[in-house]
Amino acid sequence: MSPTTSLITLAHGSGARATHELVTSLFLRHFNNPILATLEDGACLPTACENSAAELIVATDGHVVSPLFFPGGDIGTLAINGTLNDVAMAGGRCRYLTASFILEEGFPVSQLEKIVISMAETARAAGVQIIAGDTKVVERGKCDGVFISTTGIGQGKALMLEGLSHLQPGDHILLSGDIGRHGATILSHRQGLKFESDLTSDCADLGPLIAQLTGIQGLRCLRDATRGGVSAVLNEWAQASGHVLQIDEARIPVSPNVAALCDLLGLDPLYLACEGRCLLICTAESAESVLTALQAHPLGVQACRVGVVVESDVPRVELLTIFGGRRLLDWSYGDPLPRIC
Amino acid sequence: MSPTTSLITLAHGSGARATHELVTSLFLRHFNNPILATLEDGACLPTACENSAAELIVATDGHVVSPLFFPGGDIGTLAINGTLNDVAMAGGRCRYLTASFILEEGFPVSQLEKIVISMAETARAAGVQIIAGDTKVVERGKCDGVFISTTGIGQGKALMLEGLSHLQPGDHILLSGDIGRHGATILSHRQGLKFESDLTSDCADLGPLIAQLTGIQGLRCLRDATRGGVSAVLNEWAQASGHVLQIDEARIPVSPNVAALCDLLGLDPLYLACEGRCLLICTAESAESVLTALQAHPLGVQACRVGVVVESDVPRVELLTIFGGRRLLDWSYGDPLPRIC
Repeated sequence: MSPTTSLITLAHGSGARATHELVTSLFLRHFNNPILATLEDGACLPTACENSAAELIVATDGHVVSPLFFPGGDIGTLAINGTLNDVAMAGGRCRYLTASFILEEGFPVSQLEKIVISMAETARAAGVQIIAGDTKVVERGKCDGVFISTTGIGQGKALMLEGLSHLQPGDHILLSGDIGRHGATILSHRQGLKFESDLTSDCADLGPLIAQLTGIQGLRCLRDATRGGVSAVLNEWAQASGHVLQIDEARIPVSPNVAALCDLLGLDPLYLACEGRCLLICTAESAESVLTALQAHPLGVQACRVGVVVESDVPRVELLTIFGGRRLLDWSYGDPLPRIC
Repeated sequence: MSPTTSLITLAHGSGARATHELVTSLFLRHFNNPILATLEDGACLPTACENSAAELIVATDGHVVSPLFFPGGDIGTLAINGTLNDVAMAGGRCRYLTASFILEEGFPVSQLEKIVISMAETARAAGVQIIAGDTKVVERGKCDGVFISTTGIGQGKALMLEGLSHLQPGDHILLSGDIGRHGATILSHRQGLKFESDLTSDCADLGPLIAQLTGIQGLRCLRDATRGGVSAVLNEWAQASGHVLQIDEARIPVSPNVAALCDLLGLDPLYLACEGRCLLICTAESAESVLTALQAHPLGVQACRVGVVVESDVPRVELLTIFGGRRLLDWSYGDPLPRIC
């Protein structure tokens, strides 16, 4: 099916339904191959090696966040961690990264150096080497400071993820921690908005957290909640699996300062981006082991069960509200915040 | 050594000396690792596999060409071929690509689709799969239509390249074909300039041409001439090897329409970008075999010897002019044309 819109809009960059439609109707339709068609965060590639430990996992991410610097990170930390996390969500451990920079004429070299140092430190902490790069410069006004694209290459699968096709009613839906920190932080630092808060982005390398799950059976699928927040992940899973995902709103951890910002601005934290949180679906039998393993790591201390897969008729995400009611958690078309990552 | 400039300029994106200084003083200094330090177009990575055929070769490229569409290609064909060629220059054959798109709000989806189709066709022709991607959208005015970053992954080395450290006086410098086509084509189609010409970009996948050299010994180094043209490659090689590269200007093939444009605008084709031409240094003994192999392929029919490595004192590129004189082929700081690829 061809694209349904004639012009690119900010919604296409939201990571929500509009992005999904553009990806499937345009990129997937023309680039069509079985690996891309899985639409997973990381691509698993066969190699010219009989040793399965050498299976490659590859992911790519573009970064256009505004502002460039924010509490908890900057475009550099996002560029590294975002791609590390995509490889981790495919069950692998990233070893190498490439980095492509598009710079605006007039951008201060001192700011670029800060970003590069952030990237170097983040990569070093994760045990990853940046092994290839490229730099392009465009005229003043043809870019917004700096855009960075990174590609991550991992080898070997530490986790066995069964895949969405294996989802069963009764499977448990788990969340690694409190949500919406990154989106709330970015929003509070956008130009023109002045909030006094101690909000910081949750931007983090989820690799070590995910490594805690090595050897645990019964893992269906795993994804980090970035653009479009928790809602985007759940809705993509519901659509791709054909199941109903039922979420208990009262179980979703939200920090008081994120909740306060959302109340003030009329936003729903379920749609706000995270950069260091993931969702996981597993069998009911394995849920306890998974939670224990996640909670043993600093990034997973708030890990909790938030929902369950139920008998399916029309695939959707159903929210059991804090008031005891039920509503659909819509797959939003766009995102309240452009350029979140 | 720290960067010497305080603001990013268009020269930093030229692929010439300013780019080299930024890369070494900023990116390499902070991302420091032995793989990146080779500053080759493609990174050769060890793998968790004893089979050397599984050695990985990885390269990345950002693409910001203006205009987006030009005779002989578009940003899509460049985005694929540019990265395929970087992998080929490291002696490998690309198998997989990732593609990261940064789009401007309001960009016509029909133009994006044309670009995507170009990429799909170019990749298909090269036997390469696009296996991961990302899409970001920025507000109108914060980008210029579309920017694309691609990363290529190849496995196995078809060529044994000895490396610049093996260069010897008497080694031959070879060129695969006529120069400056891409730069001249882009220039002739820039807004405001109206030239009637049949100039077309030489944008091409050099993989099949390079594959002709499989099994030939005595190959020192190989690089495609892109931003900064033939001059940039020769000067980088001279600096990195510590040798003098002596080039016979009369032997450099330049098509009549490229020569005419250069005469008109006072440009030197040695500095104009190509996108389907490469330079190679090999032993004197192997030069005949290399040329025969290159000339057997459509992309190499004009392949010729253009120079020789001579005894070194101060590393430089020396041009024997068509008038019988000698001059330095300067390592230019910038490029006459920004956003050439």
